[in-house]
This record gives sequence, structure tokens and C-alpha cells, in this order.
Amino acid sequence: MKLETTHLYKEIHEQPAVLRRFLNEQKEPVQALAQAIRRQNINHIIIAARGTSDNAGRYAQYVLGAQNRLMVTLATPSLFTIYQRPPQMGNALVLGISQSGKSPDIVAVLAEAKKQGALTAVLTNIPDSDLGRQGDVVVDLCAGEETAVAATKTYTSELTAVALLSATLANDAAMFAALEKLPDAVKSTLAMQENISQIAPRYRYMERTVVIGRGYNYATAFELALKMKELTYTIAEPYSSADFRHGPLALIDQGFPVIVIAPSGQMLPEMKDFMHTLRQRQAELIAISDDNDALALARIPLALPASVPEWLSPIAAIVPGQMLAMNLAHARDFDVDAPRGIQKVTETR
Amino acid sequence: MKLETTHLYKEIHEQPAVLRRFLNEQKEPVQALAQAIRRQNINHIIIAARGTSDNAGRYAQYVLGAQNRLMVTLATPSLFTIYQRPPQMGNALVLGISQSGKSPDIVAVLAEAKKQGALTAVLTNIPDSDLGRQGDVVVDLCAGEETAVAATKTYTSELTAVALLSATLANDAAMFAALEKLPDAVKSTLAMQENISQIAPRYRYMERTVVIGRGYNYATAFELALKMKELTYTIAEPYSSADFRHGPLALIDQGFPVIVIAPSGQMLPEMKDFMHTLRQRQAELIAISDDNDALALARIPLALPASVPEWLSPIAAIVPGQMLAMNLAHARDFDVDAPRGIQKVTETR
Repeated sequence: MKLETTHLYKEIHEQPAVLRRFLNEQKEPVQALAQAIRRQNINHIIIAARGTSDNAGRYAQYVLGAQNRLMVTLATPSLFTIYQRPPQMGNALVLGISQSGKSPDIVAVLAEAKKQGALTAVLTNIPDSDLGRQGDVVVDLCAGEETAVAATKTYTSELTAVALLSATLANDAAMFAALEKLPDAVKSTLAMQENISQIAPRYRYMERTVVIGRGYNYATAFELALKMKELTYTIAEPYSSADFRHGPLALIDQGFPVIVIAPSGQMLPEMKDFMHTLRQRQAELIAISDDNDALALARIPLALPASVPEWLSPIAAIVPGQMLAMNLAHARDFDVDAPRGIQKVTETR
Repeated sequence: MKLETTHLYKEIHEQPAVLRRFLNEQKEPVQALAQAIRRQNINHIIIAARGTSDNAGRYAQYVLGAQNRLMVTLATPSLFTIYQRPPQMGNALVLGISQSGKSPDIVAVLAEAKKQGALTAVLTNIPDSDLGRQGDVVVDLCAGEETAVAATKTYTSELTAVALLSATLANDAAMFAALEKLPDAVKSTLAMQENISQIAPRYRYMERTVVIGRGYNYATAFELALKMKELTYTIAEPYSSADFRHGPLALIDQGFPVIVIAPSGQMLPEMKDFMHTLRQRQAELIAISDDNDALALARIPLALPASVPEWLSPIAAIVPGQMLAMNLAHARDFDVDAPRGIQKVTETR
């Protein structure tokens, strides 16, 4: 099958249009959510999500923390379902994130939040879903139907929703202006497909990898690693560079493949320092970056064509990651639309 | 080198004595911490930690959540150090956990907490450390010097400190009674060494594995996976069974090795159900459990000799995990005391 005719390929390429549509259509519910957060003096957000959507939660920890000084907690759904001993949520916003809006454990966290009198909100591609019905405010991801099992356009739409909430809470004109330029920046990354299709076969027999990102792009490391697992069946473990130094660094020997997410910004010096550490150990480095020095440190540089502000960089930097996983799966003759053994909608308790 | 003469072997075997000493000596500071939490009406705890200590933080999320209804957040240190945009901590307890008390990023989170007027506490093996000096209350892990690079006795001591805090906050006689029996339960697991030394060579050429635990034993999955990475250089990724179904399940094919942490308790039916899912895909299952049915589902059953209440089970269940990593490293002729490329104390920013 030609890669260009797959749902996954098309959905990756739809992302600029999805983000544009989202920004055009969803400013009102996001404004309503920001007003409710301010009105209720909320400084703590609890996020319930699984899989790709959980990675959007990781992005929220950094964006809403750094830009809005909010404390963001990732919920532990089993306390609500299996143990039925939910913690007290206090004066928190409880935010559910889910493409399908269907997973019972995520619905259970929001139902308990409502019971406790907390403000609830939902980011979903299906507002008319069990999860959507639990939200005091519901933000529609506007991604259109996503057919490939591996989520792509719903992920970047989730991140854009979080970024729009951050800009709205900060009421910051520069942030809004940067957001308006985002769909074009994401569009420019689509040109990376040609290069990535050429380098992917190099990793045909790779059996394991680690993916490193920190700060805003901690989420990118998790999401890229998840795409690698889902699409290529390569075990790919995400790590922050700091946590990786606390033990897992022992994994690295000559030729161990490491993917580093290193866009320009305040985290870049730390990422470069970490790349030097990996080079000393003769790891094989793949770098996703718009910085020439960082790219020069890599065996395989994946150059981002456009620079975007660091807080938005995860939305552009994941695209070559999606493409790398897709092209590697294709090089292995795997079905990129329907990975073995998993379905589009997963319901966990 | 004979395994029995290594620091790692000795430190694993010291654990019952360390836990006994900890319970004998540290009830007072833990009581003081519980009183401060009650006095200040705290219902939110923010934990700053790295590596093994971060896994103790994961245990705290479930124990303090289920037993004490506290919301527990794992901090994002880079917001405090690299970005210098720390979130507002509100009326939270900020708890630092570190064997050495030295990592600058963890110290920075507690220093900011003090600046914001939050209550701070520290669990450390070195009370006279930079981190120790940031704690309004300091709990000494009482583990004695830990010489092997891979942490073992400080991990179970950290978990026991969290468990003691939970029992003290709940003021629950049954919980205290269970804690008093814990050192003997941990001691009984030491008898598993003989069996584990015999099965370890089976995995001599294993290149990747995943480790599954959920709820209280989510922490055990992370800590076992970390020991495997540090000691055996096998990439070992930890997952909750729920998150694993949301995509990574695609990894599993015939013979893929999966370690499942399945002690008896409320999570056991979910773990058994997950083991059936893995068996359908012909994964190779290693189970750590005290439940005969769960053990019977595994290709390699590692039977825990004693049953302990589920909330304490991670403190016993990690011991065969430590032994599995140690024996596999030994089977590979690796230095179990000094893994390549890492040091005992890691300082990250």
C-alpha cells in the first residue's frame, strides 16, 4: 500500500487545517473556562487522561505552570475506580482529556469531581460523549473523524487547546499572536516527510530506543515514544534528561539509539549538554531541533524548518516524530492505520 | 566475584533490619509531621524527587490518596530551575525525598516552597544535607551507608516512611499493627534468592521487557524497571495495565517478556485479567505474587512467601525485583555494585 493513501498519512497532513479550525471556532468555550477559573480563584488543575491525551496533560503541567503559575496534577484514576477511595480535590479544576470521551476511568474521575462540587472541563473530539456530559465547560477539539488507530491530529489539537487556555488566562497579546502563526509553523514541518522517509530504513532493525525531552517537550518525548511503540512495535522509553541521569544512563553504550527533542529556548543548553554526555558514550543521536549547533551534534539531524516560541514548540516538534514512527512502520511493512492488537477506542476501568 | 560478597547483595539483605530500625527510631518526627499537616488543614502534598526516590513519591500518591484522601502531585523541577517560573503551591506540604539530599533541582523546589510560606518536609538518609536543611520536619531514613550505586534499602525505607506517615495521619491501630509485622514479611522474601538465582540465566539474552503494576504497585513497576535498567542494561519500561492497553499493547508478540506485579488485594482481579490478555498474545509472563491463581498464569512464577495488606505490599514485592535485576546482572558478568557510566550521587539542575 502506498503510504500517501493511508489514513495516518492524511491525518498527519491535516494538522495545520485542524489547528486553524480549532483556533477559529473554540475561543468562546476556552474564554468561558478561563473566566470560571478566575472567578473561583482556582490555582490547581487535576487532569484525568490516558495514552496520547495523558501526554497533552504533561504539556499542560509546563505551560500552565510556567505561563500561569498554576499547579497541575495528573490524576490517579484507580483511586476512583478500583479502590473507590478518591482523594479530596479541594478548590481544583478537574479537566478530562480524551479523543473519544469514552474511557470509564476518566469519566469516573470527573463524576467524582462533580460530586465533590469541583469545577469540571473536558477537551474531547466527541462533545456528545459520556465524558463530554461531565464537563461544566466542553471544548471541542474540532479534529474531524480520526480513523487511524494512532492519534495524531487530536494530539496537536489537544495541545493547542491547552495553549489557547494559557494565552486566554494570561490575556497576553504576544501569546495570541504566536498562536495565530502556529498552523503555518506546523505546515512547514510537513516538508520534513521526504527526508524522514529516506532515513527511516536505517532503523529497520532497531529493537529499542529512548526518547529524551524536558520541560515543555517532556510531553513530546512521551508522545513520540508512544507512536514508536504503537506503530513500529519498538520499545521506546521516554525520559527527562534529568531523570535519565539518575540511573538509566547505564543503558547507553556504542550505537544505542537516542532521539532528543531539542528546539530552541531556555531548555536548549541542558539538551545540548545532555547530547554531549551521550556522544561521550558513543550513542547514536537523532535530534529534532531548529538549532544548528544541536543538529550538528546528531548523527541524524531532523531540522525543524520554522522556529516557534518554546511554549508552543511541542506542537511543531511532534510532527517529525509522528512521521518517523509512520515511516519506520512502513519500512517494516506494518499496517500504519491498524497496528496489531489494539483498537481506536480503548475503555479501561 | 561471588555475589554474596557484593555490597548490593548485603544491602538487599539488610532491609528487614533497616525497616525495624526505622520504625523504632522515627515515630517522633513522623508524628510531628502529621500534626503539622492536621494543624494547617493540608489536603495537598507536592513531592520533589528523582530516580528511585521519585518512585517512593508514586507510592505516596496511592497510599496517602486511598488511606488519607490526600491529593499528591509529583513536582516538575524544571519549572523551578531552568524556567524559573515556579507554580503557586497554595496550602500544600512540599515533601523532598532523596537518599543523599544533594540534587540541586530537588533542593530548589523546597527552597521555593519555603519562600512561598509552604510547610516543607524531607525524607533523606543524610539529614545534614542541603535538602535536609530545607525541611521544617526531617525524617531520617536510618538506612546506614548505602554503597552500591543502585538504591535498595533506601527505597524500602522511603516507602516505609510514607506508610508510617499514612498510619499516623489515619491514627489507625490496624495499620500500625501491620507495619510492625512488615520487617518480618520483608525478611521472608529473602528466601526467594535461591529460586531467582536459578531462573535469572533464562533472561541472559533478553534485550527488552516491560514491567506492569497498577495502584499501590505502580511504584513497584517503576522501581523494578529502574533496577533492570541500572543493573542489567536491559531497557525495561514500566506501565500501568490501564495505560498499557491504550497503545503500547501493540508491542506484545510471542515470547515478549513481561513482568507483572500482582500481590493479593483489590487490584488483583485487574492484574489477572491483564495477564489473560497477555497470554492470548503468547507473551512470556513473570509474575511476582502471593496468589496461586496469578502465579499459575505465569511462565515463571515468583511466589511471595508472606501475604501483607495491599497498602504495604510494594515494600515486600520489590525485593524479588531487586534480586531479579541483581542476579541477571551477575549472570551477565556485570559489576552489580558499580554499573557502567553512573555514580551513587547524581546532581541535576
